[in-house]
Amino acid sequence: MKLITFDEGRVGRLDGEDVIELDVPSTRAYFEREGKVGETGERLKLADVRLRAPIQPKKFFHTAGNFADHHDELTAVDWSHPVHKGIVFFQNVDAVIGPEDPVVYPESLTNELDYELELAVVIGKPGKFFGPDEAIEHIAGFTVFNDITARDIQRKEMESGVFSFSKGIDTFCPIGPWIVTADEVPDMMNLAMELRVNGEVRQTGHTSQMRVSIPHLVAYHSPQIYSAGDLITTGTVSGVAAVQPNPFDFYLQPGDVMEAEIEGIGVLRNPVVSWKDAYGEPAPARVDW
Amino acid sequence: MKLITFDEGRVGRLDGEDVIELDVPSTRAYFEREGKVGETGERLKLADVRLRAPIQPKKFFHTAGNFADHHDELTAVDWSHPVHKGIVFFQNVDAVIGPEDPVVYPESLTNELDYELELAVVIGKPGKFFGPDEAIEHIAGFTVFNDITARDIQRKEMESGVFSFSKGIDTFCPIGPWIVTADEVPDMMNLAMELRVNGEVRQTGHTSQMRVSIPHLVAYHSPQIYSAGDLITTGTVSGVAAVQPNPFDFYLQPGDVMEAEIEGIGVLRNPVVSWKDAYGEPAPARVDW
Repeated sequence: MKLITFDEGRVGRLDGEDVIELDVPSTRAYFEREGKVGETGERLKLADVRLRAPIQPKKFFHTAGNFADHHDELTAVDWSHPVHKGIVFFQNVDAVIGPEDPVVYPESLTNELDYELELAVVIGKPGKFFGPDEAIEHIAGFTVFNDITARDIQRKEMESGVFSFSKGIDTFCPIGPWIVTADEVPDMMNLAMELRVNGEVRQTGHTSQMRVSIPHLVAYHSPQIYSAGDLITTGTVSGVAAVQPNPFDFYLQPGDVMEAEIEGIGVLRNPVVSWKDAYGEPAPARVDW
Repeated sequence: MKLITFDEGRVGRLDGEDVIELDVPSTRAYFEREGKVGETGERLKLADVRLRAPIQPKKFFHTAGNFADHHDELTAVDWSHPVHKGIVFFQNVDAVIGPEDPVVYPESLTNELDYELELAVVIGKPGKFFGPDEAIEHIAGFTVFNDITARDIQRKEMESGVFSFSKGIDTFCPIGPWIVTADEVPDMMNLAMELRVNGEVRQTGHTSQMRVSIPHLVAYHSPQIYSAGDLITTGTVSGVAAVQPNPFDFYLQPGDVMEAEIEGIGVLRNPVVSWKDAYGEPAPARVDW
């Protein structure tokens, strides 16, 4: 099933080009109710609705460093820290945006805005302290995540042993376009991944390249507790701007359009807009990080 | 006003030794409604209610490195990273516990369990991208936070530039005993702080020692957006176990009782219990971090 949030927060499932509305206040509530949810009887055209972020999670686990290729490219540019497996932090749930929502360029804070394509896992069944064999029962679905990152801030943060602000600024967490439930994904470790900017391929990868499998990753972080509807990301693939020989030719600019695609899940499309275009006024004065 | 959550999630305010119940489903909703909340008419004895975590925040900003003394003691033990101002990450909202709730020792994960006394600020008015002059309007109150940390995991995490799991394990975020609203705190930069373990003083400090004032700290992180009821912590003071010459004489053990106290706010008391005492079965097998 493809589960969507649309218009002012209504929930539905796709049926071809149609949307069948579900009788539940949110997709998080859908998972809290273990999917035991009826229909309202309303059927709409997908083309006539406005897709929203497919879920507003209680917690958004952000893991990193899970793809061998991305690990190698970081090593090649002498990245500041070794990339151990098990890296995790919590993403900013208030920075979540949906398909077609603009990423607002915060000119007051950064001039090194980067993209990072990731597969996000949606947790269904709550739980804690479980092993890889049990993890599969907790995995309810998948969506696409584009981990927008201010690299100049990230470098500064990592000197003190964190990187959170650089990835948690307003509008930095696009997810979507929908949640594909696990029963429709025959092999989550066998999905092609590609991110394009203005139609040009920037990142390519494949979930088979993960160093730690998704069930192991989900189990590994379970001492931090899962609530129904939580998201956990699985790391990005090679090709981010920061690792290019000439990164400033690749960093995002207002006017760019990103398409983050994962095989069998969907395409998440977001434009980048200037502060002025978003708010009709100049960006605030530059803040020194 | 001292605002409490009690019994099965009821909300009240203290009136001497009594609790006056408020007609609102949660303290978060109290702040979302800007405190425009009536009373139910019910009055109880404080001694007869069970205090709970005073709030379940949407977001829990965890800042670090803000006290000169703690900064100096980390430098003295050759801590792995420089402690810049502006360190932030999101704390695990599912790890929040309340007064008298046990911290469950996760023997499968750590044998270096530490305490960290912090003042937590409660955000009232939502907002983003604001300066220090406006920050004061967003500060609605204060509570005590004890940042329980597994130092062995933290050291490993920091090699990769994060420290989140080590502070976000189940039961690691005691807060309480209540929220003191800002109008009852004449000077938030003038509060004595003390943490005791089994009655023995371990940490002492004073909010006047902060390197960055609370309004500056709140403003600094505002590009990450504040929702009503969010928490933001302000850093710990000197005396954590990890910086002692003989830290293993100071690390927490099952049976210990912690009292985290801030002048004018209150005393947050939590016991540490073994996995076996908490769950009636042996801890899971040791996991290698």
